Order: sequence, then structure tokens, then C-alpha cells
Amino acid sequence: MAGYTLAELALHLGCGFVGDGETRIVGVCTLFPGLPGRVSFLANPAYRRLLGRTEAAAVVLNEADSPSCLVPALIAANPHLAFARLAELFAPPRRTEQGIHPTAVVDQTARVHPSAQIGPHCIVEAGAEVAEAVVLGPHCVVAESARIGPHSQLVAKVYIGPGVSLGSRCVLHPGVVIGADGFGFARDGERWVKVPQLGAVRIGDDVEIGANTTVDRGALDDTVLEDGVKLDNQIQIGHNVHIGAHTVIAACSGISGSTVIGRRCMIGGGVGMNGHLQIADDVVITGMTMVTHSLHAAGVYSSGLPVDDNRRWQRNVARFRHLDALAGRVRHLERSQTAPMDPEAAEEGPDA
Amino acid sequence: MAGYTLAELALHLGCGFVGDGETRIVGVCTLFPGLPGRVSFLANPAYRRLLGRTEAAAVVLNEADSPSCLVPALIAANPHLAFARLAELFAPPRRTEQGIHPTAVVDQTARVHPSAQIGPHCIVEAGAEVAEAVVLGPHCVVAESARIGPHSQLVAKVYIGPGVSLGSRCVLHPGVVIGADGFGFARDGERWVKVPQLGAVRIGDDVEIGANTTVDRGALDDTVLEDGVKLDNQIQIGHNVHIGAHTVIAACSGISGSTVIGRRCMIGGGVGMNGHLQIADDVVITGMTMVTHSLHAAGVYSSGLPVDDNRRWQRNVARFRHLDALAGRVRHLERSQTAPMDPEAAEEGPDA
Amino acid sequence: MAGYTLAELALHLGCGFVGDGETRIVGVCTLFPGLPGRVSFLANPAYRRLLGRTEAAAVVLNEADSPSCLVPALIAANPHLAFARLAELFAPPRRTEQGIHPTAVVDQTARVHPSAQIGPHCIVEAGAEVAEAVVLGPHCVVAESARIGPHSQLVAKVYIGPGVSLGSRCVLHPGVVIGADGFGFARDGERWVKVPQLGAVRIGDDVEIGANTTVDRGALDDTVLEDGVKLDNQIQIGHNVHIGAHTVIAACSGISGSTVIGRRCMIGGGVGMNGHLQIADDVVITGMTMVTHSLHAAGVYSSGLPVDDNRRWQRNVARFRHLDALAGRVRHLERSQTAPMDPEAAEEGPDA
Repeated sequence: MAGYTLAELALHLGCGFVGDGETRIVGVCTLFPGLPGRVSFLANPAYRRLLGRTEAAAVVLNEADSPSCLVPALIAANPHLAFARLAELFAPPRRTEQGIHPTAVVDQTARVHPSAQIGPHCIVEAGAEVAEAVVLGPHCVVAESARIGPHSQLVAKVYIGPGVSLGSRCVLHPGVVIGADGFGFARDGERWVKVPQLGAVRIGDDVEIGANTTVDRGALDDTVLEDGVKLDNQIQIGHNVHIGAHTVIAACSGISGSTVIGRRCMIGGGVGMNGHLQIADDVVITGMTMVTHSLHAAGVYSSGLPVDDNRRWQRNVARFRHLDALAGRVRHLERSQTAPMDPEAAEEGPDA
Repeated sequence: MAGYTLAELALHLGCGFVGDGETRIVGVCTLFPGLPGRVSFLANPAYRRLLGRTEAAAVVLNEADSPSCLVPALIAANPHLAFARLAELFAPPRRTEQGIHPTAVVDQTARVHPSAQIGPHCIVEAGAEVAEAVVLGPHCVVAESARIGPHSQLVAKVYIGPGVSLGSRCVLHPGVVIGADGFGFARDGERWVKVPQLGAVRIGDDVEIGANTTVDRGALDDTVLEDGVKLDNQIQIGHNVHIGAHTVIAACSGISGSTVIGRRCMIGGGVGMNGHLQIADDVVITGMTMVTHSLHAAGVYSSGLPVDDNRRWQRNVARFRHLDALAGRVRHLERSQTAPMDPEAAEEGPDA
Repeated sequence: MAGYTLAELALHLGCGFVGDGETRIVGVCTLFPGLPGRVSFLANPAYRRLLGRTEAAAVVLNEADSPSCLVPALIAANPHLAFARLAELFAPPRRTEQGIHPTAVVDQTARVHPSAQIGPHCIVEAGAEVAEAVVLGPHCVVAESARIGPHSQLVAKVYIGPGVSLGSRCVLHPGVVIGADGFGFARDGERWVKVPQLGAVRIGDDVEIGANTTVDRGALDDTVLEDGVKLDNQIQIGHNVHIGAHTVIAACSGISGSTVIGRRCMIGGGVGMNGHLQIADDVVITGMTMVTHSLHAAGVYSSGLPVDDNRRWQRNVARFRHLDALAGRVRHLERSQTAPMDPEAAEEGPDA
């Protein structure tokens, strides 16, 4: 019989359950509206009100939310993580066909493991190495001397440049470019002379890289992404950047050359970082922040102005252009009044 | 004889004309300098001064601008729209060759309409469907069970992921990636565990998507672009975003997961939106705005600081870091002076 | 014997040297830690302290830094430029194989020079021209009537649209899209009607374009990049933009349609520009600046708020929403006090 019982799923997750353990589950679904025969989850408290309205057969949630749930429940300390494991259980198996597609072009000096799959129109250049159980989808390029570690998947249209190395179980989505030249030029009068980019890119295990993201090769040393780094779509990583293990970066961010980012950082979408910065471990940066200096301590950092009504924004922006003068006028007022000033405010200058 | 007379063009547009109806028009051109034998247009009043200097044989413009025009004119209520139709008339016909190029790889279970064109090195996977008069340019991938609606065009190097559906008359430019995995991970200690992305992308009719734009598949439900949506280049659309009909988004914008955008919105370039927001119909957002909360009413919205001289910007930015303190100092001054305060200003707090 | 002596390198660069001219150099390296037998450079004074710790066999630096150097040195007025030339000397030669790969699809009306290399799975359409010593890496498309100038290199997966022309010695990195349609639509009620994009892209000599950057074709006239322009990764150039010679733009910037940028400009990463602007020669724009109006004079320009602690940012941002009101309250205080006002401050309005 298809699917699993609730009790079987609880056993799989190593968690408890509430309600009929024989409830049959054949897939996953959203909390609202939900689908009969499927299991959903509640992680964000904002959606707790939907518990009473779901048509799901069961819900993964934490102990505290259990009393509000009208259907059978799996009780997990981290419902999102438990749900990820359930979804994996029900995900359709990846269709793989071992071997090299007849339209692929594989150099005779490349080493391709027999269990690897090289898709249609792929190119594997001289000296490249493709390890066991690797899947190259259609239109991938693995340039000379690059190395793809075991069980990694290049979904489609991925470019891996010369000498790049990828660890185990990495997933690279369509349009990813790893190991293109960094942006290095030396001035010569009004012209710019290219500085040859000679480094590579080293990528650890369990790294995932989103569609159309680019990671440049180093100028002399390598660009490095440590184990477990997750990059969203359309991110740009400059030459010689080093990203610590388990750091995640959301879409459309750009990291300039030689910046070093710590472990377990969470960087929002559209963030820009200058080059040659140091970002500590466990730093959180909200979306669209402009990072112009190093951040030496863990914490939450931000910049930018949130959306506002256009007319109010126009008036405030016009005032911002004179903010320094406005501060001077306040200082002038403070000095000219007879009441005693707040000494703390008085000492505060623009460079404090 | 090549081209059309001015009178024939007026008939085609269903509009009036001024000047010699026998004026022969063989193409379109810019207003300045313009080209003999060609027709241009005036839509932006800023360019009205160029009317006296154009070498165009005729100009499409509205009634009010007609007296300033020294050459024959077509009189249209919406000159830009009328010009679009004229340009279409003179655009070179798209070169198409029906059938499947011998280098394409088409699975035997895919259904490809005989009138469709499958270009060189394309890949059409199992169960995919390519409808009548579709054109796949070179290097396109249509993954398993995806569906491309009638008369749609994938210009080149487009990736269409598993289960994605495209309506009629869509145009997707080179490097577009539809249906890559969304960015979904659950925390497990310091590691991140992938949440399988199981939804698809549903795209309506008459949708156009610019070069290197990415639209992620949904996590559970689908990501949706309704009819007539136009996306410029290098836009990122996160999983489960829903974009209403006839909304346009300019280049380099990023929309985070599960945000719902209304109909007929106009979103500028470089805009970033948080996830899980609601944007009403007919919202206009200016370029580089940081949208951190939902916008429940039609209107024009903005954020960001416009360009300024670097030194002035530095001084003002330094003051911004102390803006809260500055406001406190003003409040202190107000309290310590004897003159009556403006009650409105006094009530206005930071959270108003 | 491999490599060069220090004296030979000095002769090659036309510069002087300090220390043993017989020192043998076999490659280039970073300043720290440096590698025995290799030459490094010092251009950024911030790294001067590393001179005493390098293991490099020699360092390129300017006269003033020479006394601090403990190893042999090459003395150059522009050490970065001199180093670029040395690195070029030691860079591995580009592997090229003349001729057309058997998997490439080349139209019989295309003209391909016998010294050109057309890589695997490339497509060269009708009427296209590929000049001498051009290298097309794997998966490139040269659409009909496009022209690739002598010694240019398309690294891989580059799309060159119809009628696009490229000068000599250009380098285009993977995922570049040149000549996709610009974003042009005319409003028709709630719908948008496409304005046919009929122009091309003209690119000069010695232009380099980074991975996944997009340059749109003109609407009527051409989009133009003059000689020596250098574009980093993931940049978007709208239709009819014109970029002057030797201008460089860092990653993730977006230039809207019809903007004209002067010569020798330096534009930072993540910059956004409105359309139809004029930017003078020799303008420098710092990263993430929002360019909303023309810049008519050379100089340095900026906008945006630098990163801050999240709580302080929240407080300041809340005050920004009322900045106009705050300025009004300061004005009120100034008017109500008896001390004479600073006349300059008093005259300063929001539109000054």
C-alpha cells in the first residue's frame, strides 16, 4: 500500500505523535488549504491560526502548538527540519542514467567514473576528473583539470572553469559559472591592462549554488567556499573571497574581491560588500545592506531606507541633503539658549 | 513598390494624418537625427524641440503636438503604441525552419507539434510537450513533463525545468532559467538541510522574460506569473511568488519567496522585496526601493538616497548615524524653550 | 633553464632592480606568505608591513618602498602594471586548436577564418563573420550577421545576437548575453504591446565582459561600448546605452536605457542608473549609488547608507521618516528664539 502510516513516520523521525497512528500519509502539502492524505507543518507562529482550517491529514509541529491542532500531529522540536526529512521521503527519485551520452564530448585524458552520468551535449576537457555517482545534466562544461567530487549534481548549463575543485554532494543549478576570470586590471595611462587571473576556486562538501550565480577564480591564490555554504540565485563572488562553513547568502548579493566571511553567517538578499573586508563568524546582515567596513563581532547589521510613500520620501530625501547643516543649526540653537544642555548630546560629533 | 504610403499607414492604425498622404515610408527611425523615407514618433514632451530638426519623412504624434511638426504626421492618441505597431510592420520576419534539428535530442515520449521548430543542440526530455508554432532557438532545454504553449519563442540557451508550464505567445530571452530549486533549507545545528522543492512554475499567455532572469519553482505549490507579465533582464523571482497580470518589472530586481504582487504594477530596476509580502494592484515602485513591508493601497512608493557629491554625502551620512540623538536634542530644545510648541510636531514620534 | 633572472625581468619591463640580478624567478605569487623562486608586488601601502615577512624571491615596488624591502626588488613607477606584465609572462599559454569542432553547427553562408577555433557545440548562423585567431569556446552562439573581430575570445556559453559587432582582442566570459531585446513596451489599456527592438550592439576593441553580464540591443539605433571598456560580472546594460572608452564598471550594476556614460569613468559595484542620463568623462561613482540625475562634471559621487548595528539603524530609520518634520521643528525653534539666526542656515530650503 502506498505511503506510510503516521506511526511509521514518527519512527522515521524519532519523534512522538498525537492521534491515530494508522493515519495513512501519501505526500506533503501546504498548511492551507492542505490536502487530504498529506502531511504539512507549522514552524512560523504567524500561521498558527490556519491549524483549525487545514485539510491536511496530519501536521508536524512543536509541543506547544499541539493543543491547537484538530488533526493528527507529529511532535518535533524543529518542525521545519522534520518536515524537510518527510518531504525528502516523498520526493520523486532523481532519474539517472549511468554513462556518457553519445552527444557529450569527453577528452580521452579525462577520468570519468563508470557510475557517473554525463548528460547530452556536455563537455569534459583534458585532465578533468568526474567522481562516482556524479550527475552532469545537459549542456554542462567541466574545463581542463577541474574535479567534481562524489555524488555532486550539476543540474544543467553549469560552467566549471580550469582547475576548479568541487567536494562531495554539491548541487549547482542552471547557469552557474564557477571559475571565470576575476576583475583585475592595472592602470596604464587611460588604458587598463589585464592582470592574468591564475588562481582557481575550491569548493567544499555539501555546497549548493543557485541559478546564474557566478564565483570568480582567484588572481593568485584560490577563491574558497567551505563546507555547507549555500548560495541563492544570481549572487556574485569576487576573486579570492573566502566564505566560512555553513554560511548562507540570499539572492542578488555581491561580495567584492578578497573579502573573508566567517562561519554560520546569514546574509540577506541584495547585500553588497566592499573588497578586502573581514566579517566575523555568526554575523547576520539584513537585505540590501551596504557593507563598507569590516564587522568584527557577531550580531545583526543593517543599512538602507525602507519603502515609503513617494511624496514623503521626496521631502525627507531633500532634507537629508542638508542633514549636516541641520545638525549645525541644532548645535547653534543649543549654544544660544540659556538652559543647560544635555552634555552627552553636546559631545556627540559626526565622527563619533 | 517597397513600403507604404502615409495614407496606408493611417488606415492601418485607424488614425488621421496631416500632410501629403502619398509620402512613401519604408521603415522606422529615431526622431533625431531621423532618416529620410522613415517614420519616427514623439511621445515624451522633453523631445518636442527636436520636431523642427528631424530628417524623418513623417512623425507619429498626438493632436496637440501636430502644429509644431514641420513634416507630415500621423495623429494618434497614444503615439508610442501606434509607433510600436508601425515598427512591427517593418520588422524583419522571424526566420523559422519547422522541424527538429538533427543535433537536437528529443525524448521519444515528448510530444512536439510538427509546426514547431527545435533548434540545434536543444534537449526535450521525457513527457515534455511543445505546441504548434513554438520556436526553440539553439541550446534550449525543456525538462521532463514541461509544457510550452502555442507560438511561444525561447530565443536561445533557455532552461525550462521539470513540470513548468508556459502559455501562448511567450518570449524568453537567452540565459533565462525557469524552475530551478527555490532557496529552502532547515537549520540542523550549524548545518542546513535541504527542503525538497516540489512545486513547479506556471506562466500565463503573452509573458516576456529578459536575458538571464531566474524564476524558481515552488516549494510545495507553484510559482505563478499571470498573463501579460513582462520581466526585464537579470531579475530573480523566488519560490511561490505570485505576480498579477500585466505587471512589469525592470532589470536587476529581486522578489523574495511567497510575496504576492497585484495586477498592473510597475516596479523599477534594482528593487528588492522581502518575502511573504502583499503588494496591491496598481502599485508603482521607483528604482532601487527596499520593500520591507506590504503595500496595501495603489500609489507610488520609493526609498533610497539619490546620488550626491561624495564629500557632502560623507558629512550627511555621518550625521545620519546620530539622527535619533539629533531628534532627541531637538525635543530637548523644544521642552526648554518658553515659546509655545507646534502641537502637531510635538506629537509626532518615531513610530508614527 | 626554467624562468628568468631578475636582471632579465628588469630588462623586459624597462625598469631598474635592487639586489642580485642573477636571482632566478619561475613564477608569480602573493606578497604574504609568498613563495620561494617567485616574484610578488606591493601597490597598496596598507600591505607595506608584509614586506619584511614575505618568502617571495623578489618584489616589484616603487622607489619609496624599496628601502623597506629585505629581498631583491624590481623598481617600477606603477608596480601593479609591472606585475600584470610579469604575470602575463608566466601565465600558461592558452590551449588552442584551429578549425571547426565536428559537433559545431556552422551555416554555409558564415565566413570563418581558417585560423579561428570554433569549439564543440558552437553555433554560427547565416551571414556571421568570425575573423582570424578568434577562439569560440564550447557552447557559444553567434547569431545571423554578427561579426567577431580578430583575436577575440568567447570563453564559453556566450550568446551574440543578430547583427552584433565585436572589435579586436575582446574577451567575453561564460554566460554573457549580447544583443537580446531591450525592454520596450507601449501601454494599451491594461496590456503592454511590444515595441520591436531593431538596433544592434557595437563593441569596440579590447573590451572585456564578465560572466552572466547582459547588453541589450538598441531599439532603433545601436547600443555602444567603446574601446577598452571593462565590465565585471552580472552587469545589465539597457538598450541604446553608450559607454565611453576605457570606462570600467564593477559587478552587479545596472544602466537603464539611453544613458550616455563618458570616457575613463570608474563605476562601483551594485550601482543603478536611471535612463536617459548624461554622465561626464572621468566620473567616479562609489558602490551601490543610486544615480537619479545626470552628472555633468568629473568628480566622485556617492549615495546610500553604510552598514550599522541593526538597533541603531532601526532607530535612525524611524527618525528619517520624519526628517522633514524635524527640519520644520528646528526652523520653528530658530524663529522663536531671540538670538540672531545664522542667515545661511535660515535660507537653506529642501530644494537648494
